[in-house]
Amino acid sequence: MKIDGTPYRTIWVEGSPGPGPGAVGIIDQTRLPHRFVTARLTTLEEAAHAIRAMLVRGAPLIGATAAYGVALGLHGDATDARLDEVYRTLYATRPTAVNLRWALGEMMAALRPLPEQGREEAAWTRAREIADEDVEICRMIGVHGLDIVRALAAKKDGPVNILTHCNAGWLATVDYGTATSPIYQAHDAGIPVHVWVDETRPRNQGAALTAYELGHHGVPHTVIADNVGGHLMQHGMVDMVIVGTDRTTADGDVCNKIGTYLKALAAHDNGVPFYVALPSPTIDFTLASGFDIPIEQRGGEEVSHIAGRAPSGEVVTVQLTPDGSPVANYAFDVTPARLVTGLITERGVAAANREAIAALFADRVRAAA
Amino acid sequence: MKIDGTPYRTIWVEGSPGPGPGAVGIIDQTRLPHRFVTARLTTLEEAAHAIRAMLVRGAPLIGATAAYGVALGLHGDATDARLDEVYRTLYATRPTAVNLRWALGEMMAALRPLPEQGREEAAWTRAREIADEDVEICRMIGVHGLDIVRALAAKKDGPVNILTHCNAGWLATVDYGTATSPIYQAHDAGIPVHVWVDETRPRNQGAALTAYELGHHGVPHTVIADNVGGHLMQHGMVDMVIVGTDRTTADGDVCNKIGTYLKALAAHDNGVPFYVALPSPTIDFTLASGFDIPIEQRGGEEVSHIAGRAPSGEVVTVQLTPDGSPVANYAFDVTPARLVTGLITERGVAAANREAIAALFADRVRAAA
Repeated sequence: MKIDGTPYRTIWVEGSPGPGPGAVGIIDQTRLPHRFVTARLTTLEEAAHAIRAMLVRGAPLIGATAAYGVALGLHGDATDARLDEVYRTLYATRPTAVNLRWALGEMMAALRPLPEQGREEAAWTRAREIADEDVEICRMIGVHGLDIVRALAAKKDGPVNILTHCNAGWLATVDYGTATSPIYQAHDAGIPVHVWVDETRPRNQGAALTAYELGHHGVPHTVIADNVGGHLMQHGMVDMVIVGTDRTTADGDVCNKIGTYLKALAAHDNGVPFYVALPSPTIDFTLASGFDIPIEQRGGEEVSHIAGRAPSGEVVTVQLTPDGSPVANYAFDVTPARLVTGLITERGVAAANREAIAALFADRVRAAA
Repeated sequence: MKIDGTPYRTIWVEGSPGPGPGAVGIIDQTRLPHRFVTARLTTLEEAAHAIRAMLVRGAPLIGATAAYGVALGLHGDATDARLDEVYRTLYATRPTAVNLRWALGEMMAALRPLPEQGREEAAWTRAREIADEDVEICRMIGVHGLDIVRALAAKKDGPVNILTHCNAGWLATVDYGTATSPIYQAHDAGIPVHVWVDETRPRNQGAALTAYELGHHGVPHTVIADNVGGHLMQHGMVDMVIVGTDRTTADGDVCNKIGTYLKALAAHDNGVPFYVALPSPTIDFTLASGFDIPIEQRGGEEVSHIAGRAPSGEVVTVQLTPDGSPVANYAFDVTPARLVTGLITERGVAAANREAIAALFADRVRAAA
């Protein structure tokens, strides 16, 4: 997508291809939304740090960064021992990230059978493929989601009002995003859209990242507190909801950022279609009920403190709660399939039930059996 | 209620009664939760400033402050002209506050018929009565709500988990609060309670004020992002919800702080009782549907910026959103009566429907007809 007119991905290979150490460019997302800063990764350690310190975040982008990290790590030493070291170092950066493990597994499967002297170049090739495959998946989610947006646009005057929660945007992927892909494609196709951006406490990924990326691509949007969506839906001000997901079950239960369930309830209560955009690897075909997914609890300081830009321009972290008040920080919740209108995947839109999902992904169901 | 063991009201008469100018003490709520500071009001101007600058907030407390402001304003000049000036000055501080208008009307009705020389003393008397009446209303809400908490406690081991939204606490009234009154009375009666405190974006009255007052009275509580309540209810971690209200209709629709509706939906979806605590003057007997209540939109800077305590100890306002991203700030929403288990009033608990409300308040219904 674009930042002020310039096309970007969240990760790219720097310089011209050829012999010598490679380099990868990323956007330092810890500086958003207040500063746009890119970083240049040239070593395994820099790639590992970028993941660990969340300069890159979002499952697909973490996976792509890890893949490029393998390529960077093999420069000058592509022995089996080094390959294992590279794998272990990157694996340890975010131990619960499913996509990270998947990308590293792909890299190992491609590289280990090769002779040492072919591994570095093959690593760059496979890493590029992983990044390009993610772009294509996200693009196709947008193609299918665009049909839904287009149909809503045909039924009304004025922009299609879309509410989203958290950041399932291009900044979380290599390009397009998941929930945002239909939005960008509609906007770029000239269909008027307006996005209600939930700020998404406690980490404010909506207010910080979704607002940033929509704004700099030029998509009309409005940031709202997470409390507001229900009121907007009661008053006909939301035409559809699109969110991402961290894991969706074979029965269509959706695990996503905390607060998603509340928006799904409000959408259901007001007849607003509630869609989940997801790359199919996010579907866990081994799991039926979303309530079997363990919910991460994160540090309380994400609730009690918040960072923002002070009048001086400096980014400052301030305390919001009284000294001594305990806080709890559940990071995700589960939206039951009964509240989900449809799952927008790279293969098309499935209703959120076992039969419809299985019909679209018969191969995956067989593989998981 | 208590602050670290010392009983307080939010407003009190300072010094011994007698001739000479009076003084009123308040808690400067703009300094909470990071500092506990009291202020001394000795003039009409100081009382008006306290309301206007929100050193005092919450409808009942604003009303009581206005009443005392009349008494302060009449010192040395209790002519009709001065009475009118005092009225106009206080009326203009928060023009949409219903309770402010009511309290000023009460004061005028009591004072205007009196000879000039009796007005100042009568003003102090009537202001004290208004404050005491508010305390008694809130106390009785707690008496009736306590029965509900007690019944829940009898059915389970461990504390009764109560979720509340915004600050309908003693800091918003003269004492006890509305939603918090059953909580304080249960806690003081030795019934174990634990309160989930919604932070209540964008103004964070929960994280700042409710957490402060519960913590300093000694009530176990945990601050959560507004997104969390649905997840807690799905997992049996909430036994009841109690919220306040700004206005409730004759049919039982509840207008309250933005986000209340989302919690009511989650409570309904999970079979959690959802109660609204309210002084009966909050019921608008002239209105049937809550959707006829105009919803205030406030300044966007409440969403884009937030104040907190920096590491230096200084309270700093920081920007959360990207430059140029629009924000919207709807302050209230309407929870339909169908989602409300009961209305806890000073006269008892009424189901949220026209018949039940009218049965408890036949006199008010007649007066409004």
